[in-house]
Amino acid sequence: MNFSEKTIKKDTIYNGKIIEVNLHTVRLPNGRESKREIVNHPGGVAILAYKDSDTIFMVEQFRKPIERSILEIPAGKIEKNEDIETCGIRELEEEIGYKAGKFEYIGKVVTSPGFCDEYIYIFKAEDLYKGRDDIGDEDEFIDVKEVKLSRVKDMIKKGEIIDAKTICAFMMV
Amino acid sequence: MNFSEKTIKKDTIYNGKIIEVNLHTVRLPNGRESKREIVNHPGGVAILAYKDSDTIFMVEQFRKPIERSILEIPAGKIEKNEDIETCGIRELEEEIGYKAGKFEYIGKVVTSPGFCDEYIYIFKAEDLYKGRDDIGDEDEFIDVKEVKLSRVKDMIKKGEIIDAKTICAFMMV
Repeated sequence: MNFSEKTIKKDTIYNGKIIEVNLHTVRLPNGRESKREIVNHPGGVAILAYKDSDTIFMVEQFRKPIERSILEIPAGKIEKNEDIETCGIRELEEEIGYKAGKFEYIGKVVTSPGFCDEYIYIFKAEDLYKGRDDIGDEDEFIDVKEVKLSRVKDMIKKGEIIDAKTICAFMMV
Repeated sequence: MNFSEKTIKKDTIYNGKIIEVNLHTVRLPNGRESKREIVNHPGGVAILAYKDSDTIFMVEQFRKPIERSILEIPAGKIEKNEDIETCGIRELEEEIGYKAGKFEYIGKVVTSPGFCDEYIYIFKAEDLYKGRDDIGDEDEFIDVKEVKLSRVKDMIKKGEIIDAKTICAFMMV
């Protein structure tokens, strides 16, 4: 069925450095009007980076919105006019200090389709070799961790991994 | 390591019906200041609802932020002062018209920890029985689908399921 909602009016509420917020007045399939609060985000990449066949790199990082540190796979947002593969390769080196001999796209997910347009493009990186030494950037502080793949299912079950893109990446390989 | 970021100043940019947007000025671990754009969301629930041991209910719904319909497990946002289990039971009946004899919490995920505080609490529902007939609400239009569990992995691989909470729920059971 076609339940699409046409925008009648769009009010820009916030045009920030990373996100934009728009209030759309839409025409519903039943002819009535409604409002949709929409967060626009440039999208991101996430990389399942294999140190060897049974070990992957993860990063622990403080996440201000949830006021705690969590364990995630290396990831980052797409810069203006950047293609997703270039972004993935850049973020991999920025976050864990490695380059990859093999870099393969495995799929995309949408994180919060009810109010946000963020897609995350997931890659698999293998044949890693040392790149730059200084990881993170001027306002990003990262602890790199090595995690055995055999432990991942258990870590998800125990709530030690709660990041959605990370869990999706494991499901997709 | 403790990389936490203390809020020095908080400016409310938008206080909407569903989301709130705040711009935090934070003190970084290295002593410098930075800005964090944060979307506050009440959080949501998502339910893996078993019609029988090898069939689950999914919903197809137009998602305005991404301008397309996608397939998801039944889900919805937590109302003010609502506990997560009450929310899950309510959303299950609103979205697919069923109540559940067994309703079990299986874990939580965070969808976009870089800029948003949304948690999604995932439940498993079994022993379903017919509840109300009128599904959806006044501005929500839903197609209920039955999906064989044996097809899910393939649907994720093919990009027929791209919703992060849905993929996470499958990984968690």
